[in-house]
Amino acid sequence: MAAELTAHDLIATHRPTLDQALEAIRTRAYWSPHPEHPKAYGENGSLDMAAGKAAFDALLGARLDLGQPGTDDWVGAEVSPYGIDLGVTYPHADIHVLLPAMKAGQRAWRDAGAEARAVLCLEILKRISDRTHEFAHAVMHTSGQAFMMAFQAGGPHAQDRGLEAVAYAYAEQVRTPDTAEWTKPQGKRDPLALTKRFTPVPRGIGLVIGCNTFPTWNGYPGLFASLATGNAVLVKPHPRAVLPLALTVQVARQVLTEAGFDPNLVALAAERPGEGIAKTLATRPEIRIVDYTGSTSFGDWLEANARQAQVYTEKAGVNTVVVHSTDDYKGMLSNLAFSLSLYSGQMCTTPQNLLIPRDGIRTDDGPRTFDEVVADLAGAVDGLLGDDARANALLGAIVNPDVKARLEAAAGLGEVALASREVSNPEFPEAVVRTPVIVKLDGAKPDDEAAYMSECFGPVSFAVAVDSADHATQLLRQTIREKGAMTVGAYTTDEEVERAVQEVCLEEAAQLSLNLTGGVYVNQTAAFSDFHGSGGNPAANAALTDGAFVANRFRVVEVRREG
Amino acid sequence: MAAELTAHDLIATHRPTLDQALEAIRTRAYWSPHPEHPKAYGENGSLDMAAGKAAFDALLGARLDLGQPGTDDWVGAEVSPYGIDLGVTYPHADIHVLLPAMKAGQRAWRDAGAEARAVLCLEILKRISDRTHEFAHAVMHTSGQAFMMAFQAGGPHAQDRGLEAVAYAYAEQVRTPDTAEWTKPQGKRDPLALTKRFTPVPRGIGLVIGCNTFPTWNGYPGLFASLATGNAVLVKPHPRAVLPLALTVQVARQVLTEAGFDPNLVALAAERPGEGIAKTLATRPEIRIVDYTGSTSFGDWLEANARQAQVYTEKAGVNTVVVHSTDDYKGMLSNLAFSLSLYSGQMCTTPQNLLIPRDGIRTDDGPRTFDEVVADLAGAVDGLLGDDARANALLGAIVNPDVKARLEAAAGLGEVALASREVSNPEFPEAVVRTPVIVKLDGAKPDDEAAYMSECFGPVSFAVAVDSADHATQLLRQTIREKGAMTVGAYTTDEEVERAVQEVCLEEAAQLSLNLTGGVYVNQTAAFSDFHGSGGNPAANAALTDGAFVANRFRVVEVRREG
Repeated sequence: MAAELTAHDLIATHRPTLDQALEAIRTRAYWSPHPEHPKAYGENGSLDMAAGKAAFDALLGARLDLGQPGTDDWVGAEVSPYGIDLGVTYPHADIHVLLPAMKAGQRAWRDAGAEARAVLCLEILKRISDRTHEFAHAVMHTSGQAFMMAFQAGGPHAQDRGLEAVAYAYAEQVRTPDTAEWTKPQGKRDPLALTKRFTPVPRGIGLVIGCNTFPTWNGYPGLFASLATGNAVLVKPHPRAVLPLALTVQVARQVLTEAGFDPNLVALAAERPGEGIAKTLATRPEIRIVDYTGSTSFGDWLEANARQAQVYTEKAGVNTVVVHSTDDYKGMLSNLAFSLSLYSGQMCTTPQNLLIPRDGIRTDDGPRTFDEVVADLAGAVDGLLGDDARANALLGAIVNPDVKARLEAAAGLGEVALASREVSNPEFPEAVVRTPVIVKLDGAKPDDEAAYMSECFGPVSFAVAVDSADHATQLLRQTIREKGAMTVGAYTTDEEVERAVQEVCLEEAAQLSLNLTGGVYVNQTAAFSDFHGSGGNPAANAALTDGAFVANRFRVVEVRREG
Repeated sequence: MAAELTAHDLIATHRPTLDQALEAIRTRAYWSPHPEHPKAYGENGSLDMAAGKAAFDALLGARLDLGQPGTDDWVGAEVSPYGIDLGVTYPHADIHVLLPAMKAGQRAWRDAGAEARAVLCLEILKRISDRTHEFAHAVMHTSGQAFMMAFQAGGPHAQDRGLEAVAYAYAEQVRTPDTAEWTKPQGKRDPLALTKRFTPVPRGIGLVIGCNTFPTWNGYPGLFASLATGNAVLVKPHPRAVLPLALTVQVARQVLTEAGFDPNLVALAAERPGEGIAKTLATRPEIRIVDYTGSTSFGDWLEANARQAQVYTEKAGVNTVVVHSTDDYKGMLSNLAFSLSLYSGQMCTTPQNLLIPRDGIRTDDGPRTFDEVVADLAGAVDGLLGDDARANALLGAIVNPDVKARLEAAAGLGEVALASREVSNPEFPEAVVRTPVIVKLDGAKPDDEAAYMSECFGPVSFAVAVDSADHATQLLRQTIREKGAMTVGAYTTDEEVERAVQEVCLEEAAQLSLNLTGGVYVNQTAAFSDFHGSGGNPAANAALTDGAFVANRFRVVEVRREG
């Protein structure tokens, strides 16, 4: 049977988008082919809001049969942070059957070449984009993100990150030409002449270990980087966030089939409760690449134990904002309030420690004492979240009981400057919705150090009194070096302080946002322009996305002969 | 004091060469700026043959003072494989003084930027190039290579590999622009606008662990890749091959000083006999990159233990040539004879196992039995090395007693098809010069497998009888997968066999030379065009040189602000 999707057609359709992505990662100017607005969907084959909701509803309580070989059981126990029992079951794989089956199609996928792989990946992303409304509900009801965030971060922004990975992967593979004629002069004798052929070859099977909070956003870069470089990809989702990645695998398998490739090049590894198959999979000889987002302890375990694989980890860090001085006090407060509140602080990029001089700060509204700054920030958060409808739309739901427990324990760590409050969600009464807590600590007290030097993932921030700007930069350096950081923020009108903070970030390899007072937040990064993490401090050993993230997922084999 | 060498002048001098190197790694056509012929030197400040020899002689018996901080002793006990006691002593470092001193200049080196670093590296290479004749003697009298090989492989070819690494490092760093203006439309509202600055930052100190046989050729890629990406570099040479790398460090320190940078950005770590400082250095927290060439066991140790560093290893493999059929029998024999003989087989790329069908092969001279092929190859080696002067010029000296012991033991492993013979060297009577041994083994005998499946570094080759072409490709696959391979060769006129061998090499990630019968040999690779190793089989975890070899030696730090 001829393939329904030919490489020729896919190139005609997607090559212009690929070229734009290649240009975007070069200039790092703003660009995205994936609309952020829910109303932009509904034409040209994409699902509108109602159709997306209906598609999601149709998934509930049903078996998602991916047609995978070696399926020995059906598993799934996802309960939405909003209270819905999803009731979806997924194939449970006998890996002794599934892994060999995933190797069967690798030769054809390798021989297809970098361009054919790239445009096929873009077709997968296009079909996911068309179903963004459906994915939005899947992300919302696994991560606990509010709908609008699930829609944007789980939809277009995740698709952007996937496309970015495809662009980097393609660019890396075509740095070396397919063929070269090599002619070396030999004085009066005939030159030496060789014909050389260079082929990018995959490492094997890439394993993507998904996370609970951003299953698509954090899952797509590794998935598409490995697939675009010729590898097969096995997706092991977080047991609480299977659906968005299972749908992704379904789309990928469908597109591969239509294009005449083996659908088993992409497969799902869902697990039984407590099965813990990530360790087993990550150390299998067939697995040559691991992409992981999650806790530091398991990330460190993977780096130490999955020695047969290239391991890319995004673990946890302690993110700091240095609050030194500002010429837009209100802007600073509202920007910080939003950053602390978004998705109840359940982002790896949410600020945790706000370092504020104990003698207060200079602002365009005059000097403010430490206590005033903290109180004003608490007021800004209160104001932002005062209306329950708005609070629900910003906070989403607490993703799991661990986060709730940490939040409740945080109030005992110091003086509470802003208490967390429960917000009721009329649409989903079972959702656990909480506003952030802000706790005052003293950066000079050894007793407080244990609190602010540990990651406290969730809606918990510490207002840490510091002695001076020097003390702040010294604490910032110590925190990044020892704990890692996905983000650093700073507010200062003082050039010397700005330089000092920048120097710390350059030396400790952390990404810095300076004096953000408008509609961009320290915890948000944009694909094609911002790097997510640096890969140079303990929070992550890779950055999304750069050359290092893709270059070792394949190797180049040279065949040379005379003439 | 103003720097004598300004970035402006260095750019004017070296940017055209850098641009040519960038073009060469893109096209992979033949290119080199470093002349291979000894007579090409002697003008424009370069040393001619006599001056180079005189410069080398002046080094003997003297202290090579690099002006390094923390020097607590003078060490050195190099004895040339040609019998000369070099008598050179080098600084022994107190690493608690030297390592901190190496960090002092890193900020200025980072701030200089990718282009200034690249052209400074090119100035270092230019000065090394000018002293190629001097380096040739230093390489000859540490590695045991014959003069002409030491001249070419230790001189222009090593310089090419260094320049190639600089080109890759530069290209990788400038993939991301220095700055970007990011403007995101917001419908009817004002767009979001950010200014972003991107800075490549180094990881820290790179450690280069040199080898005995190719101190410059194998040392330069890592040294220059780390330096060009903003790192400091500590060079730990092999105790038997210190001089070529010590001279390299001396040149680098001189150029850094003249350009106004801290000379301690490049330093030497010579050791006392038996001190074994590589393990201590490789696990120091300041060391963030390790480049290593040497034994598999220590390479594996580094990969497992130097966890704070990016580790790039070239270890050992078992190189195979599949001899199936040929339409140029004489060319094949002479090409293989040369490959087995060059530098007494003491190259990581020298073929070890020649897989030959026990039923014989088809050739343009008619069919040849297994025994005839082996005898004809033995004859070709004998012919090539029959004249002692020519034999000395090709073989060089046995580099150390271990190689000699392996050679002597090899004769007991099977039927000797070609015995090794001693060659006397009139100029250096103490040199241990030996022709290669060829031993017959049976690929179907489990007893023989232990021999041909182990690396036997030195002038030892096994003519392994195989049942069929299928058997050959199966053994080839097993060998690469289990033992790794730096090179694979094959001779066949059969398209199906050619495809099968290619497929093994693509699947197991090994570099293949097909049907070489002229003046290019399986054990030689050319910078800018050929990859040395693949980084995808157990012989090496990196290839010289590709994007993956440079991309993780630095990270990019982004600083973004509004407006």
